[in-house]
This record gives sequence, structure tokens and C-alpha cells, in this order.
Amino acid sequence: MTRTPGNLLDFTCSALDGVRAHVPLVQCITNSVVVNVTANALLALGASAAMVDIRGEAGPFAGVASGLLVNLGTPTLEQREAMLEAVTAANAAGTPWVLDPVAVGSLPVRTPLGHTLRDLRPTVVRGNASEIIAVTGSGAGGRGVDASDGVDAAVSSARSLAERTGGVVAISGPVDVVTDGRDLVRIANGDALLTKITGGGCALGAVMAAFAAVDDDRFATTVAAITVYTVAAELAAARAAGPGSFQAAFLDALATVDGDALRSRAALT
Amino acid sequence: MTRTPGNLLDFTCSALDGVRAHVPLVQCITNSVVVNVTANALLALGASAAMVDIRGEAGPFAGVASGLLVNLGTPTLEQREAMLEAVTAANAAGTPWVLDPVAVGSLPVRTPLGHTLRDLRPTVVRGNASEIIAVTGSGAGGRGVDASDGVDAAVSSARSLAERTGGVVAISGPVDVVTDGRDLVRIANGDALLTKITGGGCALGAVMAAFAAVDDDRFATTVAAITVYTVAAELAAARAAGPGSFQAAFLDALATVDGDALRSRAALT
Amino acid sequence: MTRTPGNLLDFTCSALDGVRAHVPLVQCITNSVVVNVTANALLALGASAAMVDIRGEAGPFAGVASGLLVNLGTPTLEQREAMLEAVTAANAAGTPWVLDPVAVGSLPVRTPLGHTLRDLRPTVVRGNASEIIAVTGSGAGGRGVDASDGVDAAVSSARSLAERTGGVVAISGPVDVVTDGRDLVRIANGDALLTKITGGGCALGAVMAAFAAVDDDRFATTVAAITVYTVAAELAAARAAGPGSFQAAFLDALATVDGDALRSRAALT
Repeated sequence: MTRTPGNLLDFTCSALDGVRAHVPLVQCITNSVVVNVTANALLALGASAAMVDIRGEAGPFAGVASGLLVNLGTPTLEQREAMLEAVTAANAAGTPWVLDPVAVGSLPVRTPLGHTLRDLRPTVVRGNASEIIAVTGSGAGGRGVDASDGVDAAVSSARSLAERTGGVVAISGPVDVVTDGRDLVRIANGDALLTKITGGGCALGAVMAAFAAVDDDRFATTVAAITVYTVAAELAAARAAGPGSFQAAFLDALATVDGDALRSRAALT
Repeated sequence: MTRTPGNLLDFTCSALDGVRAHVPLVQCITNSVVVNVTANALLALGASAAMVDIRGEAGPFAGVASGLLVNLGTPTLEQREAMLEAVTAANAAGTPWVLDPVAVGSLPVRTPLGHTLRDLRPTVVRGNASEIIAVTGSGAGGRGVDASDGVDAAVSSARSLAERTGGVVAISGPVDVVTDGRDLVRIANGDALLTKITGGGCALGAVMAAFAAVDDDRFATTVAAITVYTVAAELAAARAAGPGSFQAAFLDALATVDGDALRSRAALT
Repeated sequence: MTRTPGNLLDFTCSALDGVRAHVPLVQCITNSVVVNVTANALLALGASAAMVDIRGEAGPFAGVASGLLVNLGTPTLEQREAMLEAVTAANAAGTPWVLDPVAVGSLPVRTPLGHTLRDLRPTVVRGNASEIIAVTGSGAGGRGVDASDGVDAAVSSARSLAERTGGVVAISGPVDVVTDGRDLVRIANGDALLTKITGGGCALGAVMAAFAAVDDDRFATTVAAITVYTVAAELAAARAAGPGSFQAAFLDALATVDGDALRSRAALT
């Protein structure tokens, strides 16, 4: 596939159908804050979710799951061990996996863990600009989960990170960027309300794992995941009176977003 | 009480009043994904919730709680120890307890734990068909939290499990089944949206513990819990635009469901 | 500032503007039940949230956070160690911190921990009447998270606790009380629906930490946090059909509550 915006939009529509038809089972090792909304986002979209995050089970499960998310938001000791177990098994089995290096940079436990996981070659890395810069190995890292660096500042880090992992890197922000080190696409969808609920970014990582399970072109599946997710956010924002009603409307929108909405709203360049 | 559908429906209506009058305090040792919605479901219904799940406290609390839920969804090491401590204390004090053997079958940590807990004679076991088959000791187990076996396939397992524990077994599915090894009731209420939010089954286990606290006939209290819960789901589905709005509407419905709604909707056979 | 109700209301309005202007970053070490709604309440209000609750990170982060919440709801071993690490660092750095002694009194792990944390001189202690009495060192303690003692019964405990810590103590109930051992204010806002969702009290502790970050008068910032929070609850209750829709409406209201609503509704005496 030539990666034109038009081709990627066609791919996005068929990949969404693919997720709903195949119901990929996404294993999530994620933080306590967003674990509920992450499972609900996967279910709403049409995928399946299993939060298998303990030692002794995380590895065996990663060998049979359709995809895996590893999110560093609240990495307990037990989860950290489960992450390494799961990633090792995922790599052995060919299970695609997404790394979300939450707040990597300044925090002393997760930063070396993020670098270790990076070197295990994640299929996709997703973070805000500060996190992408930090996990690549430079920069001061994130202020918690907020980006202090702009998306553009992170593009060269993202390219070199993608070359290093052999995978795909996605930078979240007002305009999202996806690169595999060679091609680069920008997606100008979404709504500011996504930043006013916790999990707005974290659940996207799980959705990327669901899409990665239905096609081997992970550059295209990552673009598809972001496009579906951020177009759904726009549909929800139009019906919300604030962050609380947005949260409910967003799950409703993930369940109903379709090719018509994608074709009329997607802003890929 | 002769367990006719009519008698069980009468019982359900008075048991719901009993929960709201006595405000049973339900201790929950449950998974990170659904812990919030489980507490909220208990509060909405009119019960009280306390998630006391650490070593050194789980046992003392189970001795004074009105009921106990043990759910194997994300069983950390600390929780696994707390579960055994709590169940031992519950059995000593006569506190009714519900076992939810989430994903028991194939996963290597929770499967032996589920069998150990089964042998401690839970008052009620609740699971989907695959989980009931697996916790009974046969079958390949669940695909995460989704049922791959049908409810009918699990009925003979449920009967033998109930005979073994001396308690009640409930199979969740499009039609729910409750048996104590002798009697068997089917409840054909609920809505598919319950399967599109995480915790749809897990919170039901907590509601069963609340009902078990208000009457010694745990076959009847389990039927009552399922009937109230699934009728509330129908009321909520009628007002929902998708899984997000359903989640809010379901809590609203648990707070308002009453004898009139139960009598007009309950489908017990 | 002379602490008249009128002055405190003026302060509340400007402190709310201050939170929205300065976006304080609140570190939360809190329980698994409410961690999501706590983060969402902070984001809705206009603050920022980071749930850094592991050993080795909790301390360094508390040194740079704007405020810290320590909530004893589900205190895992790892969290208990992180709490002591964070509080030590917060005290060294002058970071204001809020202690929420959930269910301290009868439970054998958290009760001595609550007393240890009390002796580390929290900037603010927030609890229901039973918890305040118990953490002060007398009384039988709470029944889980419900108050069995009335607010008035706890006032003398609250005064002596404030004198002991050198900080502020807030008792939550139908009428909230704030004291620094000398002055005392009552706030008669809120709605019973706040007691029908889990986290209604716990998230308030985080909001107190956000307000404490924007002014050194922590008696006044605690009054401001309660007033904003409980007035928002009134706005939400007017639009809710039950606890589920209240939860969404409450986050919406935290995002929109303003000086006009505060001035027309605040009931400070």
C-alpha cells in the first residue's frame, strides 16, 4: 500500500470492520487509574480485554493474546516483573505489543524500566512529546502525564526511536504524529476534552494493540487506531456538557463510530 | 418456601426491601478493573461496601462484615493471601461469601487458587459457563472473562459443584441459571449491554453477597440478586445510547428498581 | 484576613481562580476504588493529577509536586512504604499534604499507620466524624467508610487534633466542619447523592491538596475546597436521575462551577 492519506483512510475503515469482526483479545498491564476505562474502551470498540498482570500468568497469557499493552503509569513491583515476563513471551510468540512510557524521564524507577522495555523492541511506542523524547534517551522527561515539549520537538526523536526499535512510534498531542522512521503521517482530529479525563491517552494505547492484532502493517494500524479514537472523541464532544458526560458519550461513540463518520471527519496529512 | 417462580418473585421483592432496610456491609476482595463499579453498584442498590483486601485486615473484617465477595480477576500476591485469610474468618463467623472464579481454567496461578477456594465451601459460586465448568474440575476454562461454553453445557457441572460445596451455584449468560444441586431456576432477564461494560458480571457477585446477608435461604437470595440486577439492566438499556450511557443509567436503575418493575419484567422459570 | 463567612467566601472565589490559573500538580497515594474518580475530579476542577505511589518514586515526586494526598483506603504494603517516603519528602520540601484516615479505628494495619502519619503533622486531616475521633486517639473508629458518630461529637477531637498537628482538620458530614484548633467554620452545602457514589469523600481530600497549593492560609484553602466541591455537588444533583448520572454531572459541575454559583449557594457560618 502506498501510504497516501486516502489509502490510509480506506485502510482505517476496513481495519475498524476487522476489529469488530475478529474481536481481538487485548492483554493490558496498565495503571490503576485508567484500568477500568481502558477495558471499557476496548469493549465499546468491539474488542475484548483481559487485564492479566501478575507474575506466572502474564507470560503464558501474552503467548495467546491477540495484542498486549504495557503502560508504566503506576508500576508496582509485581507489575514490573509481569511486564518483562509478558513482553518476552509476546516477542517469542509474535504477539504485537504497545509500550506507553508514562512519565518516563525524571522518575527513577520507571525510567530505566522504560529503556529496558524500549530495547525489547515494542511494536508501537505511544506517548506525549516529552515521553517520546525521554524514552528515546534524551530530554528531561515528562511532568507526570502532561506534555511540556511540543509535538514537533519530538519528531526527530520519534524517527530515531522507530529506527532503533524497528517498530512504529506515535506522538500524542493536539495533532498526532505516527512514524516508522521513514513515513510520517499527521492526524488533526480529537477534542480538548480528551485531556480533561484521565485515561484519554492510556486507553488509546490499548486500542492501538487491538488494531495491531488485525493487520501486519502496524504503521497503518496505528494510524487507524488514532483516527477512529479521535474521531469518536469529536462525536462525543458534540454531545457533552463537560468531562463527566464526555466520558460516557465517548464510550457510546466508540461503539457507533463508522466509515461514514471517519470519511467525513478524518484529517490525515 | 416451595420454590415456585411465583414464590421466588415474592421473595425477591421482599429481599430487595430487606437489603435497603438493613444496609448490609459487603467486603469485596476484587479486581482492579471493576472495583469502582462494584462499590458503586452496592451503594446504588442500598447496601454498603468496604474493599478491605490486605493481609492482617481482611480476616478481622470478614468476621464482622455482612457478606464477602472473593473475585479472582487480578489476584495480586497480597490479595491472594488476603482471600484465604478472609474466607477462613468468614467460615468461622458464618459470614456468607461469594466466589467469582474469573478466568479460572487455563491460567496457572488462579486455577489452583480457585480450586482451593472451592474446597473452602463458598456460599455461592458465580461465573460464566466456562468458569463454572473449570472450577468444578473439568473443561478447558474461560477465554479471559468471556464464556466460550454455553450455559446449558455447564448445568451438570453446576449441579455437581453445588453438591460438593453444599452451597449455591449461579451460571451467568443470556439466561442465568441458579442451582443448589437439587432445585434449578432460570432467569431470562438482562440486556446485551451488560456484556459491553467491564464489571457487568463481577458487580453481580457483590450484589449476591448483599442479598445473602439478609436471609438464610441462599438459593432464593441468589435468584433475587440476579433478578433485581438484570431487571435493572433492562430499565437502563431502555434509556441508554451505548455502553457509556448504559453504565450511568444502570447505577440509576439499581437505585430505583422496585417491586412494580420486578413484577412486570421478571422472567423466572 | 479576619475569618468571617463573607471574607472566606471572597477567598473561595479567588482561590478557585487560582487553582485554574496555576494548575497545581497533586500527587495522590490513594485507594484502588476511587483512584479514577479522584484523578478525574482534579482534572475537571482545573488541576493536574499524578498517582505516583511506588517506593523509590513517591519521595522524589513529593519533593516537586504542588500538593500530596495520602488516603488509607486500600493500603497495600508497597503503598504504605510509599506513603512514609512521600510524607517525609513533602515535609522536607514544604509540600502541603492531606491525610485521609479511611476506616482508621478498628482495622489493625491502618490504625497504627494512621497514628504514625498523624504524628508527621499533616497540613490537613480530612475524615468523617468516626475517623477524626479515631485518628485523634480515642473512640471505636469507623464502620468502613461510613460515619457512625455525628459531626458534633467529633468537634472537640478535631480541635485537639489540629492543636497536635499544627494544621487544619476537616470533618465531613451533612454539615462540614473546618477548624485549626482556634477558628471553626461550618459549611452546610452538598447533597446526599455524594454519599451514594464511592469516592465522594476521598476525592475531596485531593481537591483540598489542590487548593492548599495555591495559598499558605490552609484554614481558608480547606474551607474553599469544601465549598467549591459541595456547591458543585448541588449543581450536579439538580441534573441527576440517580447516582450514575450524578457521577457524570458532578465532574461536569466541577469544571463549570464559578463565583456566581458559589455566591448564590454557599452556606458558611
